[in-house]
Amino acid sequence: MNHQQLPNLWIAIPDSSLSDEQTIRDKSIKICQFARACSIFRVSKIYIYHDSSQRLRSQDLVLLTTILRYLDTPQYLRKRLYPHSRELAYAGILHPLSSPHHQELQRFEDVKVGDIRVGVICQVNGQYCADVGLDGLVLLETRKKNFVNKINVKITATKPILKGVEARPDDIRTYWGYDVLEARNLVELTETLPNTHIILTSRKGRYITNVDPEIFAIKSPDNVLMVFGSPKKDVDEIVASEGKKIKISYMMLNTFPLQATRTVRLEEAILGSLAILNFMLLKGNIGN
Amino acid sequence: MNHQQLPNLWIAIPDSSLSDEQTIRDKSIKICQFARACSIFRVSKIYIYHDSSQRLRSQDLVLLTTILRYLDTPQYLRKRLYPHSRELAYAGILHPLSSPHHQELQRFEDVKVGDIRVGVICQVNGQYCADVGLDGLVLLETRKKNFVNKINVKITATKPILKGVEARPDDIRTYWGYDVLEARNLVELTETLPNTHIILTSRKGRYITNVDPEIFAIKSPDNVLMVFGSPKKDVDEIVASEGKKIKISYMMLNTFPLQATRTVRLEEAILGSLAILNFMLLKGNIGN
Repeated sequence: MNHQQLPNLWIAIPDSSLSDEQTIRDKSIKICQFARACSIFRVSKIYIYHDSSQRLRSQDLVLLTTILRYLDTPQYLRKRLYPHSRELAYAGILHPLSSPHHQELQRFEDVKVGDIRVGVICQVNGQYCADVGLDGLVLLETRKKNFVNKINVKITATKPILKGVEARPDDIRTYWGYDVLEARNLVELTETLPNTHIILTSRKGRYITNVDPEIFAIKSPDNVLMVFGSPKKDVDEIVASEGKKIKISYMMLNTFPLQATRTVRLEEAILGSLAILNFMLLKGNIGN
Repeated sequence: MNHQQLPNLWIAIPDSSLSDEQTIRDKSIKICQFARACSIFRVSKIYIYHDSSQRLRSQDLVLLTTILRYLDTPQYLRKRLYPHSRELAYAGILHPLSSPHHQELQRFEDVKVGDIRVGVICQVNGQYCADVGLDGLVLLETRKKNFVNKINVKITATKPILKGVEARPDDIRTYWGYDVLEARNLVELTETLPNTHIILTSRKGRYITNVDPEIFAIKSPDNVLMVFGSPKKDVDEIVASEGKKIKISYMMLNTFPLQATRTVRLEEAILGSLAILNFMLLKGNIGN
């Protein structure tokens, strides 16, 4: 059984996701709960869309994107990529994700040809190298001139010197963390994603027990985007604030049938909904 | 659709559940996460069993039982039942459960015959009364001499004075919170519960996707007990430390198939497992 046989799992949360928390500490902990839930269930994209029903709190947006990306970064690269900042004041108390790409700092004798590690680009004597958390740099065999700062490096030689290339997507055969992407609004986001099944989560939606044939029918390599509302507004209210209506082809689902508490918190909704979706997608695509 | 058509849902967690948290603040927040997950999914009993593989931390046990019970208590009774204590130092920052029995403080003109409210017993002029969060006491019509401190009161008259009786279990038609119970060990607990399906959660268990016919077959009014291990030991290791083996009739299930993080935290395991179980029990008992 292999997660690559499953549909790609993405989520979308609003930039108002932190609006029910007061302090940077509590906001940081909530973001970490989002990151943990996404990492457990192999979510590969986290979209943060603008909630048009609320005034943009740009500080919250920066906090969200910064902490989500920080937690997804292997520990050996954090000092290099994240200088001290206000947003990361509480990074030390957050639970680590321990995702598969979060390898340990290693001695370079222990690395093998074919290994893939997340690295940061640097230039030494005009040549591109990467820091991939070994006790030496990897010389990059490439003719490219422009790199994003953070790349995946595949080791191609260990002797006499450590060499590598930028890994291609199909070199990576395990869950490799998530990308954090911003979207101007929800309608634009959901209408521009190809081969993507949109699931809106809402207490007003149909009980998820009612729609399992539709979810079991979602097959790899399609994508599933699960959209969450804010602590204050439901998904349909956010769409309405954009002056739009929800497309009929989208599923609007209540993933907490018969909930006994008055509300389900966003961090609870994400974990619980992903747990059920993981179960259903696995069942629908691999069987047992 | 009604939760009374579903099997009773219970969980068991070890008294070592807090062993990966250092401060009373963090322990309190973790307990609140347990309480929230149980309340969302209508868990009616929380068993705390002794983890024989660890030295008993009696302070953690007191913290667990105290905060769980405190959070399940309606706010209007908390001051009366819970004087200030070390265990409740962080009660103020915990998210409320807002369960159905957490009614608001009300004026007694607004209460109706047949209403049920949680109350605390007191004696006035030799007669039993109950404080049920109204601006007056309810006179209890009873010949009983012994009461537990906290009872459910059904209002039987509002004029000329407020009267009530102790509610019977079948008077209560909605989720009414959980009881917190202690168990000496896991084997003794699981072997003494009648009509109860035992589900042990463990990464070593069978994928839950493999056993759905067995779970769909669990019918009301049976009970389901979902057992969780500790942050440090798996359920089977805890059973082994009792010198016992796991009964073949128990299901040992992995509710996080293909998990990508190295570990799933206990608070995540409880919420995610209950989300899937809620879905499956609903599907198996009510259909849609």
